[in-house]
Amino acid sequence: MDNEFLTRIERLQAAMTAKGIDAAFLYTSVNRLYFTGLPTSNGLLLVERQGAPIFYTDFRYIEVAHRVLKGMDIRKFKPAKEQLADYAALGKNWKTVGYEGTLTVAQFLPLQETFAPTAKMVSVSALVSELRGVKSPCEIDAIRRSAAANDALLAELMETFRPGMSELEMLRHFRMAEAARGLTESFDPIICAGANAVECHHRPDGTVLKPNSELLIDMGVVVDGYCSDMTRTLFYGTPTPRFKEIFAIVLEANQAVRESIKPGLRCCDVDKIARDVITKAGYGEWFDHSLGHSVGLEIHEAPNLSKVCETVLRPGMVVTDEPGIYVPGDVGVRVEDLLVITETGCEVLSHTPREIVLPC
Amino acid sequence: MDNEFLTRIERLQAAMTAKGIDAAFLYTSVNRLYFTGLPTSNGLLLVERQGAPIFYTDFRYIEVAHRVLKGMDIRKFKPAKEQLADYAALGKNWKTVGYEGTLTVAQFLPLQETFAPTAKMVSVSALVSELRGVKSPCEIDAIRRSAAANDALLAELMETFRPGMSELEMLRHFRMAEAARGLTESFDPIICAGANAVECHHRPDGTVLKPNSELLIDMGVVVDGYCSDMTRTLFYGTPTPRFKEIFAIVLEANQAVRESIKPGLRCCDVDKIARDVITKAGYGEWFDHSLGHSVGLEIHEAPNLSKVCETVLRPGMVVTDEPGIYVPGDVGVRVEDLLVITETGCEVLSHTPREIVLPC
Repeated sequence: MDNEFLTRIERLQAAMTAKGIDAAFLYTSVNRLYFTGLPTSNGLLLVERQGAPIFYTDFRYIEVAHRVLKGMDIRKFKPAKEQLADYAALGKNWKTVGYEGTLTVAQFLPLQETFAPTAKMVSVSALVSELRGVKSPCEIDAIRRSAAANDALLAELMETFRPGMSELEMLRHFRMAEAARGLTESFDPIICAGANAVECHHRPDGTVLKPNSELLIDMGVVVDGYCSDMTRTLFYGTPTPRFKEIFAIVLEANQAVRESIKPGLRCCDVDKIARDVITKAGYGEWFDHSLGHSVGLEIHEAPNLSKVCETVLRPGMVVTDEPGIYVPGDVGVRVEDLLVITETGCEVLSHTPREIVLPC
Repeated sequence: MDNEFLTRIERLQAAMTAKGIDAAFLYTSVNRLYFTGLPTSNGLLLVERQGAPIFYTDFRYIEVAHRVLKGMDIRKFKPAKEQLADYAALGKNWKTVGYEGTLTVAQFLPLQETFAPTAKMVSVSALVSELRGVKSPCEIDAIRRSAAANDALLAELMETFRPGMSELEMLRHFRMAEAARGLTESFDPIICAGANAVECHHRPDGTVLKPNSELLIDMGVVVDGYCSDMTRTLFYGTPTPRFKEIFAIVLEANQAVRESIKPGLRCCDVDKIARDVITKAGYGEWFDHSLGHSVGLEIHEAPNLSKVCETVLRPGMVVTDEPGIYVPGDVGVRVEDLLVITETGCEVLSHTPREIVLPC
């Protein structure tokens, strides 16, 4: 185990101590990965306030766990009843036991049965999200490389996509290019030809990209476990005045955020920066989602840049800046960049140009 | 809603009535998909013993739900408190409330708080698994097409893979070929060159396939939502006597299952058929996983063909037949077919030859 992961566990233990939590049961793959660096599809990281955590897993990962997780107490899962007896023995003096809100009921109920008679069960989801919300330099580096790979993939696709292709054909090209580059995607890409761009979560279908129309692409890849996310709304041919008008407003909102986001602002303040630009231009009712979300090991992490999120931004947070205007049956535009909050403002990780007009 | 999905809901309602369950909260995507046919990433199917189910979802899916789910009561999710008040109003007379064991704690606890004072909370996971375990003709047709697509993909890959390539290069070719065919995978493919074949869940790495060595490929794709699964252990060059010996035993175990599996046998009886062949040959200790699992909308479904599963096989169940022998540091062989249980035996859905020797 290198210092990176030891530091993460120490920060967790400090947060547990501050909140009076004696032990945290971390069952979900992504949290195990965050705190150990070892990808496993089955396991439990059991962390007490002090001392080496216990890492339980099955026969498939025992050897690699012993090899990689130095300084942890590696144990093989036992049959269910014996396993619960182990927990009970470990937790004789625990007063507060932490679980993840994303744990399944089937995993949670036996824990509750074991501990609830004598200890309080509390969710540690918010606490873990808070730790994961501020990325370390090596995490930011991975996200930067993920964003660069996403830029390069889109550059290749712009050489391929052209009017006459259907969304499904473009999806096929997307996946071929992605595979050729040895990348996986951080979410199903959204590819919207023409008026389909007004649907925020459109699934690619047989709609054909026509000349003189728009193409909205929302895409991301995974590099070293870390996600990227970017949206560009391209135009093939001569942009209509209507498209140009709406595009300019969305770009202005996106830019206002990039230029003013910084530590100390609350997430809702940043959402308001973009929303004010769009509302002032008269399109407020057609920007009906949040400005953005955090990105890391998962494509959607906390905190969100939403109207209701009062979390204060800190250096090291990585968020999307993705305002949009979607006028039903007419024009849909979204411009999305990935930003990392710095000491004084932000670094923009998405380097693809925002205004892209291609021949048709 | 066509009859297929109405029938599935009627079967669920009959099972709920038989078990005395008044209402079932189905939150997980795969179960919503199974009972409605509509893929959604957020929603709740609320089924009572009688009458039209309620389908809750968010703004993204409301329109398509109204269009597709005829005969259901479509409602938009409200803010959390109002939503729970709705449940409480609906459930004034419920005595037993069903939930899924795969529900997250964060979803479960508010339900428990709402109903536990007056009603019993019971898991419906086993009941739903049992319904999903027996596939309908149109599900079997989709799985048949998925298995055929998997066969075709492997045939293409066998033209490409050759000694000198690393597992990661082969993975890249796998994903390029998959993407070109418009397919997605049902699980991360397992590609093991040489002695890596002894690791059941090996992750492709830089290991290079050498001449005169084996290549184990465990792969599956998704067609119309349905998974396939198949393993072949190929040999590049001249098989060693040791490989031939072990391959023959595994193939005999796989064949014994294909020739004797039928309705009325218990899953554990079928596991034993394969295990007896391998044990008799002296390799019992190196076959340390179950014979197989069910396959459908998910790659791993119930029932399992395992030592401990006493479920009785029924026509329409779709299972893998995948015995293996893994001698550490030596030879690993697995042969896996996908089978559908018929009235009298089984239909084998995997059509790729099992013994494959390729030039090196």
